[in-house]
Amino acid sequence: MLAQAGRPLDIALRFLDPATQPPGAAVGELHVGRYEDAAALDRFVAGLSHVTFEFENVPVPALERVGRSASVFPPARALAEGSDRLREKAHFQRLGIPVAAHAAVDDPASLAAALATVGLPAVLKTRRSGYDGKGQAVVRTEEEARRALATLGTGLVMERLVPFTRELSALAVRTPQGEVRMWPLVENVHREGILHVSRAPATGLAPGLEEAARGHVTRLVEDLGFVGVMALEMFEEGGRLLANEMAPRVHNSGHWTIEGAETSQFENHLRAGLGLPLGSTAARGHAGMVNLVGTVPPLEALLALEGAHVHLYGKEPRARRKLGHVTVVAATAAERDRRLAAVERLVAGR
Amino acid sequence: MLAQAGRPLDIALRFLDPATQPPGAAVGELHVGRYEDAAALDRFVAGLSHVTFEFENVPVPALERVGRSASVFPPARALAEGSDRLREKAHFQRLGIPVAAHAAVDDPASLAAALATVGLPAVLKTRRSGYDGKGQAVVRTEEEARRALATLGTGLVMERLVPFTRELSALAVRTPQGEVRMWPLVENVHREGILHVSRAPATGLAPGLEEAARGHVTRLVEDLGFVGVMALEMFEEGGRLLANEMAPRVHNSGHWTIEGAETSQFENHLRAGLGLPLGSTAARGHAGMVNLVGTVPPLEALLALEGAHVHLYGKEPRARRKLGHVTVVAATAAERDRRLAAVERLVAGR
Repeated sequence: MLAQAGRPLDIALRFLDPATQPPGAAVGELHVGRYEDAAALDRFVAGLSHVTFEFENVPVPALERVGRSASVFPPARALAEGSDRLREKAHFQRLGIPVAAHAAVDDPASLAAALATVGLPAVLKTRRSGYDGKGQAVVRTEEEARRALATLGTGLVMERLVPFTRELSALAVRTPQGEVRMWPLVENVHREGILHVSRAPATGLAPGLEEAARGHVTRLVEDLGFVGVMALEMFEEGGRLLANEMAPRVHNSGHWTIEGAETSQFENHLRAGLGLPLGSTAARGHAGMVNLVGTVPPLEALLALEGAHVHLYGKEPRARRKLGHVTVVAATAAERDRRLAAVERLVAGR
Repeated sequence: MLAQAGRPLDIALRFLDPATQPPGAAVGELHVGRYEDAAALDRFVAGLSHVTFEFENVPVPALERVGRSASVFPPARALAEGSDRLREKAHFQRLGIPVAAHAAVDDPASLAAALATVGLPAVLKTRRSGYDGKGQAVVRTEEEARRALATLGTGLVMERLVPFTRELSALAVRTPQGEVRMWPLVENVHREGILHVSRAPATGLAPGLEEAARGHVTRLVEDLGFVGVMALEMFEEGGRLLANEMAPRVHNSGHWTIEGAETSQFENHLRAGLGLPLGSTAARGHAGMVNLVGTVPPLEALLALEGAHVHLYGKEPRARRKLGHVTVVAATAAERDRRLAAVERLVAGR
């Protein structure tokens, strides 16, 4: 989707991927190589002016190596800050961004301490490399907590299970010159740890909530000297926001912006990284997005849905894999929800 | 732009082009070859399910050859009907679509006859292969008409110069099953024979005019058994429509649909050709498009314009060559025109 956004601006993309058939191969030049392979990195970066990344598990040393000859955005520091959940939460707190009660867990002793300070129910998560619900367990009893510790290993964080009203994400973009623009707040619904549906602009926000979110994400990108698109995922609990995690990249909860915003997250990410003026982040109507996870309904059925904008990634189907998404846009939130429900029915096979 | 529209639907495109560096090379597989080269055509079509074209000067025999193993859309007949201006006008008249007074001109005798029936001022045009204002001359005196005949050669048509209020185009799409959808009427401004600006939906239409246009283009695509997108270019003269020419393909006056309509002409062209359900052709606000002809302003300046959606084609600059376009969309026609004026000022170097 970054390459799709770059094409009309005559910005060509080259991809480095360990896989031989990633979706990027259809829209740009592909280099197959490991992020740990210095020679592959050097071949990849030859002739490139800029390098960006679209998932967090790129090793920081790889970014540092390509950064010798190309301009890397977002900054590697954002990856480092976000790569450990404990460090990330400490970072949020330093910036005055509220987070849920939490504690480090590495062994039975620290687990006991965490149970005392965080309380139950809670979520035990690996501090590194988890995504889409992998590497985490909800624990409601001390026994469940001990079993989760045995399963997940060491290097964990225990977080209070927030009985949230909903999950919101603040999607913002920052330029090297320090201009920050935020898209309207996004409301997200997850299923089995994977984003299922996003709606934007989020409706029924308590007064001041959007401004609070803007303050949080702005402080975050400013502190990091961030360049490009950042998503800050939050829980709304009793009218306040608790930061869950940041994604220092274009984010699934921003896919609706392709049709639902004046400028998509992908285009503004490229504009920011290349030092070009940002486009408007205003909404175009009311948008909703449904992820296609594991399987894809027949294209004919998807396209028969009123107002459906279909995005297939050309990936082999696999359980829990994001294979595409469908966006609907409407003039009212009610009509958006009606269209969204039709997409969800089809995706659920009903 | 067809390939850009196909990508999210997992529809990959392959291009046959006599040029070695056409824009398509950046978004699909390129076969370099002449349309008259049977072996090149056979290699090109191997493995393809469908073949389409996006300009009129593809030889009909080439379409017939690839049509032996792939489904070709639009039908070659539409190319044949549109490839001769005289035949095209006769076709319009058979379908009850009004055209301006005209007559064939091949020599001084038929010129004299044409001057008597059509009158002056008039336009002398080559019947075949003209586009973007090439192969035509406005003539206001008999002497000018004689000189134009000497310059343009034989195989011409003389048309009454219509003192039109404006140029409109009816953009429609038809499926193999016969469903026809029309986008809102488009208002076009040409400069030196090349499309300069489009606005859609056209405003201030006399009652019944949009329905008349819908009737014309619908009869046309039905008569041709057409599949895909068709543009019917018309003059508005004293509250009535006179057909000028048809373009049996996605058309420059429909580029605004990428951001300005629910479904773009490119996506609906592919949907129609592949037998998939059509998407809505409703407008999303008020759109305006400016062509970038001959030169392109700096990308930074273009992107600094409020609401500008920039499309560069990656072509080498050349006089009178379309190198890209800029689309603006706004909630009102007045705001659209304000934004359009800013784009025009930049493009004009003011």
